[in-house]
This record gives sequence, structure tokens and C-alpha cells, in this order.
Amino acid sequence: MTRQDLINNIRRKQSFLCVGLDTDILKIPQCLMKEDDPIFAFNKAIVDATAKYCIAYKPNLAFYEAMGVKGWIAFEKTIEYIRKNYPDQFIIADAKRGDIGNTSKLYARTFFETVDVDAVTVAPYMGEDSVTPFLGYEGKWVILLALTSNKGSHDFQLTEDKEGERLFEKVLRKSQEWEKEALPLGGDGGGLMYVVGATQGKAFEDIRKIVPNHFLLVPGIGAQGGSLEEVCRYGMTKDCGLIVNSSRAIIYASNGDDFAEAAAREAQKVQQQMATILVNAK
Amino acid sequence: MTRQDLINNIRRKQSFLCVGLDTDILKIPQCLMKEDDPIFAFNKAIVDATAKYCIAYKPNLAFYEAMGVKGWIAFEKTIEYIRKNYPDQFIIADAKRGDIGNTSKLYARTFFETVDVDAVTVAPYMGEDSVTPFLGYEGKWVILLALTSNKGSHDFQLTEDKEGERLFEKVLRKSQEWEKEALPLGGDGGGLMYVVGATQGKAFEDIRKIVPNHFLLVPGIGAQGGSLEEVCRYGMTKDCGLIVNSSRAIIYASNGDDFAEAAAREAQKVQQQMATILVNAK
Repeated sequence: MTRQDLINNIRRKQSFLCVGLDTDILKIPQCLMKEDDPIFAFNKAIVDATAKYCIAYKPNLAFYEAMGVKGWIAFEKTIEYIRKNYPDQFIIADAKRGDIGNTSKLYARTFFETVDVDAVTVAPYMGEDSVTPFLGYEGKWVILLALTSNKGSHDFQLTEDKEGERLFEKVLRKSQEWEKEALPLGGDGGGLMYVVGATQGKAFEDIRKIVPNHFLLVPGIGAQGGSLEEVCRYGMTKDCGLIVNSSRAIIYASNGDDFAEAAAREAQKVQQQMATILVNAK
Repeated sequence: MTRQDLINNIRRKQSFLCVGLDTDILKIPQCLMKEDDPIFAFNKAIVDATAKYCIAYKPNLAFYEAMGVKGWIAFEKTIEYIRKNYPDQFIIADAKRGDIGNTSKLYARTFFETVDVDAVTVAPYMGEDSVTPFLGYEGKWVILLALTSNKGSHDFQLTEDKEGERLFEKVLRKSQEWEKEALPLGGDGGGLMYVVGATQGKAFEDIRKIVPNHFLLVPGIGAQGGSLEEVCRYGMTKDCGLIVNSSRAIIYASNGDDFAEAAAREAQKVQQQMATILVNAK
């Protein structure tokens, strides 16, 4: 998906919500357990119920891999289902991969060829050659971890170097150099985005000084306690520039037979807040 | 596997070689393509040919995921085959995972319950709660990325903070605190190991000052150009303390019908060098 298509979808649907498909076999409603593939049945129902309120879906690979081969089947079926029925959705494989160059190439092949998603999350610890193999696929996006939503984000990401630059700032700065080298013509057909946790509040101001235009994927509203208003106040750009994710608060809104309707209600609530914010931002 | 069992295996086999099963469908011999599952057929032949010369196997998940569901089937079959036929082998899932606590728990479930490996590699960027869910499984090991073998390791891992501590040193230091907290009784039944690239030379001296006893998983000899002698000179402990990996130089030693014999010859060569080093270290 191009950047412009993503922006158009956000404007048209008045939403920059991403629904996180963190589907745990231990948490889905009992009524689905009679299905052949309960994980896929759950995802299909959630997607059908929420698609009009969101512009992206983000399955986290951990939840699928935990079931081994069965989980990968459910993951691939979910991607195919969304692609076929909701082609305007931006699909993010939340995989947090990253390895030496030779191996990252294979991960890129996985997510951009074998499974055809729009974006994959990547961990920056191993540096340039772990990230660049994901760049250069037409219309595909690398969403690099910058400042994450969890408590452990303080352990290393905030470490200041001798010049006072924090690690997440160095990641933002250096990765843009790699992007320029890999994609010298720029354009909107693919490239970098960044993960910044909704729990990071005013850090969004500092982040926008370094990456004024890049899209940010923002997990951490809902179950993790981040504030949508605060994220938008400090992180929004003229093109929106935000994809805000909610997982548990939407998909597990009810664990009864009404789980899909409950998810739709929660997604709609967030979408309405987003519509208000988008109107006021004009 | 306990630490003591690992040490006993190293002494008995006079080897601390790990064979990396980075099995790429595009690189395996043509003669295997008629098999139902060419990836598994390749791995089975490589394992049967090399098991007596090594003490560990390390499939890298990237190579399996690149084939989607078929790849995961081959991965699981490979683990089961090694477990059943070579129960003394230490099996490492080279996955470089790591996510918020809630999600890392699922990755731990994947590798220590669904797929029963002895160890999984984990990326430290997201900090404490991304790592601790992997700790506390009896006999299971977290191999945390510290100083990797690739060029990109220089981008962030060597960054010095205001006190002059480099990021990889901070990872080594802080993660030991997490280990002590998660495993207050210590013992040899599971815990932390670290990835340190063979290409890092004298950095092993600095690393041993911080982690004098922990096992290090050392990739980067063979195709990546690291020196076994140098690694051992600076990194070896009285318990050996090293698991040295070679992937491409062994498994792709020949791409003809003799690929398994060629792999055995290469593995034996490395094992003989290791035996000499172990004898001289006494």
C-alpha cells in the first residue's frame, strides 16, 4: 500500500485505528471451540465486525506461533481473508524480527512474498544490515521499534550516549540514513515507519523533531493504559501520521456469544473519538 | 538440559560445535527436490551425518518461516527427529524474539512447550519484561543477543553511555540482575546464555569480565570469517563456556549427492580443532 492510499483511507473512514489480532486460544469464547479452526473463526468474526471502524489489522505472530503449525495455518488464512474481503486494510505482521543480513533477507521473503502483508515490525538491536533487507519492496513498510510501550522500554531505549542522544533517538536518526540509501528516490511506495508506545506521552514531541513526517505505529492504548488524546496532541501530523493500535480492549470486550458485537462497539467508540480528533485538527 | 549435562557432553565428545540448520529451499541439493519434504529430508541427512561431531543444533526460524506453513512443519519434524534419535543434543531455536511481557510469554510457550527446544535466542531491545517470561522454565535457556557477528553490530551495540559503558555491556550487566531475580536459587537447570559473534575478537576479554561463567553462543566462524582460535583464547572458561556455531560452511559444503558426507567431513574438521584446543586448555 502506498502512503497516499493509507492517508486516503484514514480520511475516508475518519479513523486511524488498527485492531490487534492477538488471538490467544486460551482466551477466545468457548462457543468457538467446536470450530475446525477456532483461531481463524474468531479472527474472521472480529474482522467482519470491526472492518468499517479501522484502517489496519495487526496480528502478533507470538499468538499464532504458540500453536505451532496450526497457528501458522490460522495466521495465513487470516491474512488471505482480510486481503480478499477488505483490500483497503493495511496489514501489519507484528513479528519484531531482525537478524544478520543474510537471514533478515529470509524474514523479508516470509512476510512480503510468502505471506503478503503490507508491513512488518523489526527490532533494531542488530543494526543496519538487519533492517535494510526489508526495504526496497514496492509498497511494503518496515515498522522499526523505537520507543516501545512496555516498562522494559526504560532499560535500554532511554540510555543516553556521551552526546546526550538517547538510544531510541539514535535509532530514529540512523535508520533514516539507511532508508535514504536504500530508497534514494524516496516516494511514497514503501519505506520506514516506527513503533512508539502510547504510554510514552510527551516523548512524542521529541520524536517528531527527528521524524516529522514518518508514520508511527502506536500500541498501548486500551489494556496498557496510554491516552489517545495525548498521543494525538504530541504525535499527529498534517497527514495524521499515526496508526493507533488496540488489541485486548477490543477483541476481548466480551467472551460470550456476543464477542463480535462487543468488539464492534469498542472499535466504534475509538473510531468516534478519532473522528472528533481529525475534525478538530483541520 | 542442565548446564552440567551440557558440559559433560562437551567433554565426552571433545566438541563444542553447534551445527546451524539454516536450511534454504533455494540452496539444498537438487537430488532432494523429489522428496515430500525436501527441507526435512536435508536436515535429517545432515543431522545423521554430523551428530557425532557436535553437541548442539541451531535451526534459524527465518529459513523455515520463509516457506510458511510447510516450513513450520519441517521445523517441528526436525526438532522431533533430533529429540528422538539424538537426545544428548542441545537444541537452540534461533528466533531472536522479544516483545512486551504479555506477548513474550506466548513466545516462551511456543518454544518451551509447543516445540520442545532447550534454548531460544532473544533480542534485548525491549528490556526486562520482554526477557523474563522466558526464564524459569526448568532446564531451558534464554540466549540473549549481546554483541552480534554482523557489521550492523557497530550501529548501536557499541554505543557508549555517559559512564563509558557500551550498550552490549549494559545488556550483559542488567540481564544478570533479571536472572538473579527470576531464579533466586540459581542452580544449573536453566537461565541465561549470550550471543557473542566470533568476529568480535578481543571483545571476548571484556565480555568475560562481566559474565565470567555464563555460556556464550558464538556464531560467525566459517562463512562469516571469525577465528576459532581467537574466540577460544579470549572466551573459553574452565567449563569450556562456549558453543561455537557454524552453518553454511558445514551444511552447504557440497551441493551434490555427497552433501551429507561433505558436511560430516567439515564438521569433523572443526571437531578435531576443538579437541586439540580442549586438550591444550587443561
